[in-house]
Amino acid sequence: MSIKVKFSEVQQSNLSKVDFDNLPFGKTFTDYMFEIDYISGEWVNPSVKPVQMLDIHPGNMAWHYGQSIFEGMKATKSKDGVPLLFRPDLHAKRLNKSARRMCMPEIPEQMFLDAVHTLVNLERAWIPPHKGSAMYIRPFMFATDNTIGVRASDNYKFIIFTMPVGPYYNHPVSLWAQDEYFRAVVGGVGEAKTAGNYAASLYPAAMAKKLGYDQVMWLDAVHKRYVQEVGTMNIFFVVDDEICTPNLDGAILAGITRDSVLKIYREKGYRVSERPVDIHEIVDAAKSGSLKEIFGTGTAAVVANVNKFMYKDEEFLLDPKNYNYSVEAKEIINSIREGSHEDTFNWLVPAECKFEWI
Amino acid sequence: MSIKVKFSEVQQSNLSKVDFDNLPFGKTFTDYMFEIDYISGEWVNPSVKPVQMLDIHPGNMAWHYGQSIFEGMKATKSKDGVPLLFRPDLHAKRLNKSARRMCMPEIPEQMFLDAVHTLVNLERAWIPPHKGSAMYIRPFMFATDNTIGVRASDNYKFIIFTMPVGPYYNHPVSLWAQDEYFRAVVGGVGEAKTAGNYAASLYPAAMAKKLGYDQVMWLDAVHKRYVQEVGTMNIFFVVDDEICTPNLDGAILAGITRDSVLKIYREKGYRVSERPVDIHEIVDAAKSGSLKEIFGTGTAAVVANVNKFMYKDEEFLLDPKNYNYSVEAKEIINSIREGSHEDTFNWLVPAECKFEWI
Repeated sequence: MSIKVKFSEVQQSNLSKVDFDNLPFGKTFTDYMFEIDYISGEWVNPSVKPVQMLDIHPGNMAWHYGQSIFEGMKATKSKDGVPLLFRPDLHAKRLNKSARRMCMPEIPEQMFLDAVHTLVNLERAWIPPHKGSAMYIRPFMFATDNTIGVRASDNYKFIIFTMPVGPYYNHPVSLWAQDEYFRAVVGGVGEAKTAGNYAASLYPAAMAKKLGYDQVMWLDAVHKRYVQEVGTMNIFFVVDDEICTPNLDGAILAGITRDSVLKIYREKGYRVSERPVDIHEIVDAAKSGSLKEIFGTGTAAVVANVNKFMYKDEEFLLDPKNYNYSVEAKEIINSIREGSHEDTFNWLVPAECKFEWI
Repeated sequence: MSIKVKFSEVQQSNLSKVDFDNLPFGKTFTDYMFEIDYISGEWVNPSVKPVQMLDIHPGNMAWHYGQSIFEGMKATKSKDGVPLLFRPDLHAKRLNKSARRMCMPEIPEQMFLDAVHTLVNLERAWIPPHKGSAMYIRPFMFATDNTIGVRASDNYKFIIFTMPVGPYYNHPVSLWAQDEYFRAVVGGVGEAKTAGNYAASLYPAAMAKKLGYDQVMWLDAVHKRYVQEVGTMNIFFVVDDEICTPNLDGAILAGITRDSVLKIYREKGYRVSERPVDIHEIVDAAKSGSLKEIFGTGTAAVVANVNKFMYKDEEFLLDPKNYNYSVEAKEIINSIREGSHEDTFNWLVPAECKFEWI
């Protein structure tokens, strides 16, 4: 049974104004957004409407006390033009996991999925045809009470908007591994996809840039030696024939691309471990020549190869031209998305209109 | 030289609608707010206008990536009706310290101070006359770019609004000291007054409530034993004749009430220490009877007495009726604010109109 959703049509689509050959990341919005409010314990007034300004009170609790969570997903198009979602159920579950940690209401999984389906189906003409490009989908929820005093908000807004995007990283990235600034700690909110985690990463990221590196390689705050993430991605290392990535200890985001990459490697029978990865072990492997690859994984970048990293004033070089595992994972995920590789995992879901318009 | 600021008058003041005998904390806004924008590297378009809704794009970066910082200050009135600010310069400096950590622009101290002065002077009729009540002042800044992709925003908005408030805590508070959830870690953003820190505290605070306690006593994330803060306040312990509070290690907010309380005790010649405080030491002191007082300090509560705490399933009781140090500090700060105690520290500043209206 499909739910009834209010639909307001745009006066004029912006689609014809978009240059799909020169898409910056994250600046171009499609025509429509999905919006639903959480009021008095219920999700009410779902609507699909033109992307528009919101009337927000300066006391908005999300600005003052940070209750704000989001997801990042991608949609692509099959060769015959069908809009395709990639593992949308995992994003619904992860958003709700973030919601629980941040004391925010969960959104019914079916509502989340129906809204993503419908919006992407409606906006399918905006999915860029180019390889490496995609439609980026941003579901997010934030507090809407307007009171001062630290407590969980009673009311919330959940919105989904979509954007056609070009590739996130075009070139290999360099990393600054450092033990002065920390992104998250076990017992904190590192596992939640919440706004504050990203703000906390900006200053160390700016320091990395100043030193000539693209991103921070985050170490754990307790022992100051176990690798957590890179920039805003999960991280993988290939040492000899072992592919390893830090285990999900509560401080690390449970990336959906991370999970997909692990599943691909395991199906191939590769030697894969999720375990604590000590930066000293990686440095030793770099020195002995057994460190073969480092790469990040995330929805935006899919896979981003690392060409060097610095730790304690020593720089270690890698040559992504020799990478095999990272290239294979990226190729398989992108090919599944385009339909040129069989979707043996059943990750793709055609985006359909699920709402009844009123 | 006073700067020129656009002034828009309210059609009708809401002042007459306020019941000053029954003021909830943080729900009643005064008539006016101060607003200024940071655009292309400059602070522009300062205005004082009726508190009103803002036009905010759903891509607002503060919601997505958490660049949002604030201050909390209080204004009172002297017996002859002069509106008084309490150490406003420290709040200007602390906001800018938060701004630097969160990669946000600093606001010129003079602009911050002139705006606080002028707004409080303009709204002085809203300062509640009752003891323990005050005008709460909320300066805050948030990102206003509307793009997706993790980076520092180019544009920001800084707003100040004010609210008449009743007392924050009316009764002693009980604490749950726990080593499972952590508020902040050295190398993180615990010292910045940023939205994400507060969102992270909500879930552990809800756990405390479930266990029958008002607030969490936060321990450090590395050793899981050094006390950091309590709820959203700094914390003081009196053990025998030593008054101690955790030293500012970078994970603890540098409270202005904390600083005032320390200055009062030091001027009196009491034995005061800022040092790591081990929860095991406090438990031992509670068992031996040498633990005399525990209290929190903060702008909202000024001083909040603790009547019990739990650690590792053991509960320890204290009797605030026997407290001397906390009562003395609260009495002195409140009396200085009311003008019944000499302001030997020169903490009070009369709020004056500093702008030229256009």
